[in-house]
Amino acid sequence: MYKLSACCSMTCGISFQPKMVLPSLRVQKQGNGHCTNVPRNVNLEKLQNNYLFPEISKRELNHLDKYPNARVISLGIGDTTEPIPQKISLSMANALRKAIAETFYKDVVIKDTEVFVSDGSQCDISRLQLLLGSKVTIAVQDPSFPAYIDSSVIIGQAGDYQDKTGKYQNIEYMLCGPENNFFPDLATTPRTDIIFFCSPNNPTGHAATRTQLKQLVRFARDNGSIIIFDSAYAAYITDDSPKSIFEIPGAKEVAIEISSFSKFAGFTGVRLGWTVVPEELLFSSGFPVINDFNRIVCTCFNGASNIAQAGGLACLSSEGFQAIHSVIDYYKENAKILVETFASLGLKVYGGVNAPYVWVHFPGSNSWSVFTEILEKTHIITVPGSGFGPAGAEYIRISAFGHRERIIEASRRLENLFSKREALFNFVE
Amino acid sequence: MYKLSACCSMTCGISFQPKMVLPSLRVQKQGNGHCTNVPRNVNLEKLQNNYLFPEISKRELNHLDKYPNARVISLGIGDTTEPIPQKISLSMANALRKAIAETFYKDVVIKDTEVFVSDGSQCDISRLQLLLGSKVTIAVQDPSFPAYIDSSVIIGQAGDYQDKTGKYQNIEYMLCGPENNFFPDLATTPRTDIIFFCSPNNPTGHAATRTQLKQLVRFARDNGSIIIFDSAYAAYITDDSPKSIFEIPGAKEVAIEISSFSKFAGFTGVRLGWTVVPEELLFSSGFPVINDFNRIVCTCFNGASNIAQAGGLACLSSEGFQAIHSVIDYYKENAKILVETFASLGLKVYGGVNAPYVWVHFPGSNSWSVFTEILEKTHIITVPGSGFGPAGAEYIRISAFGHRERIIEASRRLENLFSKREALFNFVE
Repeated sequence: MYKLSACCSMTCGISFQPKMVLPSLRVQKQGNGHCTNVPRNVNLEKLQNNYLFPEISKRELNHLDKYPNARVISLGIGDTTEPIPQKISLSMANALRKAIAETFYKDVVIKDTEVFVSDGSQCDISRLQLLLGSKVTIAVQDPSFPAYIDSSVIIGQAGDYQDKTGKYQNIEYMLCGPENNFFPDLATTPRTDIIFFCSPNNPTGHAATRTQLKQLVRFARDNGSIIIFDSAYAAYITDDSPKSIFEIPGAKEVAIEISSFSKFAGFTGVRLGWTVVPEELLFSSGFPVINDFNRIVCTCFNGASNIAQAGGLACLSSEGFQAIHSVIDYYKENAKILVETFASLGLKVYGGVNAPYVWVHFPGSNSWSVFTEILEKTHIITVPGSGFGPAGAEYIRISAFGHRERIIEASRRLENLFSKREALFNFVE
Repeated sequence: MYKLSACCSMTCGISFQPKMVLPSLRVQKQGNGHCTNVPRNVNLEKLQNNYLFPEISKRELNHLDKYPNARVISLGIGDTTEPIPQKISLSMANALRKAIAETFYKDVVIKDTEVFVSDGSQCDISRLQLLLGSKVTIAVQDPSFPAYIDSSVIIGQAGDYQDKTGKYQNIEYMLCGPENNFFPDLATTPRTDIIFFCSPNNPTGHAATRTQLKQLVRFARDNGSIIIFDSAYAAYITDDSPKSIFEIPGAKEVAIEISSFSKFAGFTGVRLGWTVVPEELLFSSGFPVINDFNRIVCTCFNGASNIAQAGGLACLSSEGFQAIHSVIDYYKENAKILVETFASLGLKVYGGVNAPYVWVHFPGSNSWSVFTEILEKTHIITVPGSGFGPAGAEYIRISAFGHRERIIEASRRLENLFSKREALFNFVE
């Protein structure tokens, strides 16, 4: 429900409204009145804390209570604020599948029947988990988008959460930091059935190079693994990093690709994405994965809203596509401003070139403390890196979505904060 | 993906277009090329056949191949064909939750925070299965909407499929036929954790009476069970049957309600629905179910399309609500025509009064044979009752959605077929 607040950005531009108050934050009653005899799903018991973004939202709300007149800027979640490019009209789902295949996968020859239109990649992550079931083993980048791990825990693939490490048992965390050019050391990575891999990465903003992705595909082939490749930010790639895993020879036999219109076309609240399952991808028995995914999609989903699909189709027309790329350029310019701001303050900054996210290092800090101080002193919402995994503990993710004047204003406030601060790196609790 | 074809009805009124060809029907390759070492999810292996509606679609396609010039009328799936009432504009998600609470649950006092806006009840059935996990036991009406059973199998609650009975092991099938006024004999029904209950029922069209629902709630309370009550067709109720399970005292402590704009407001392709999880509903430990459901929704879903939500809000304005009810009356008049047609032919007909579905009995027949003969001889798509469970084996479901002239034309064709036929009841393979 959280992202429903995205629709606010459709009506009022940037969101100054408080995010929705979640029932989970209000309901504390336990054990009063009639209890059913239905035991709670142990998988859900294992989940630690709230989902990251509602937790941010709660803190934003608390902040607004405390500072009712503050003009809060959110660089956290990244609601896209630019209007959806024009040319939206009704049309058919098959046309959208075809348009996606032709626009994004022409050179790598993906058939339209291998494209499944979804209501966003986050939803398809869960549907893929339903497809895979509880018995598979998974690996994730550390840091990474939290839905991979959380959905894995919900479906029952994970063991218990370990406070000491900040990790779930039975999940392989592949460290991706500046020390390894944000690409895991595959020589020391154990085999898993599934490898979630996001490029350009959320939160680090790093786009894996062609060489890196060749290694990844080789690794998956050698191990008989399936890569679930999240290319939601591919449109932001500036250099010659691959925009699709299917640019790598041999990938069709080992990879599924999930993607989205959300950040590509300013569709965050509109809910539209797609998943590519190549016919060549087979389970160990030789059974095609696409057959099972189609079954899941038919049973557990009923298609993206036709209105959203019509919008998606318009985005892929030549006129629409051009309009969208000017929106992407706008956000990339925002990212550049933010990168320069942090760099000028003497901080190490990553991302922002091939992605709308900027990943800022505060060595020795606790990311929630950095988050809190930035919020407290500048009224700017960021996202603490630890929400993306233990490797994000000293980082803050900054989103480049927003109106230009807000980005410039945020930069001014951040410069003001950090230039006044005695030391840059003493954010600890 | 199947229901994506519903968007066709937005542009061309009734659908004469072939439904989308599903990848599962095309891909037959097994064992060629690279196989991953990832085993197929055993839950999916258990699933029998295709999901019902794609199977219908395949047969429709085959039929169109065979009779390319036939003007096929679909009374099968029930794409709503009347235009969505006007007054569609953008607005906020919170307003929609409030409007749903006030429009449908004012008398029973459901809070807006207990309402979760979804992209349709079918999707929320799967999310509820994710919530419940593989360890719970379930009961379903027989016949019933197939997504309850299929999602149960996918999540791992079911045992193997038994060819002899047409049932999955570990699922309790509650017979609901004319012999028991379409309400299960609860005295002989074993306890399960979860009871899926749809009223007005899809496919039988029977709306449970207040007395029946009181018994159901009593049964759930006594057994510590949770009812998942599907009220997707509540707007079609003509008599004083309850439109919500929460009209029954004590239901909040034992029930979740799922519902939809699809058939209420002609939103089939727009994708909008809701689920009510009362704060009073507790797991055996006393933990509130709403907390876990909120977590699932946040992690595995990102909200319904904001455009669809704006449309939903417009439906609930006084003007919109009135417009919708005239559309419902239109479909109910269609249902009446269909009921009269079948009754005049000497067939036993159920439903059609409190629901947009008509349930026709062909004693001693095989429903797929009836389906095939009707299609072959009249070019009318229906749905064979056996797709809804073993108790539907001798029935056909007829949908009342469609333009009036098509319904009248279909009635004429059916009268023509059955009046010419030597015996009404010899549809066997």
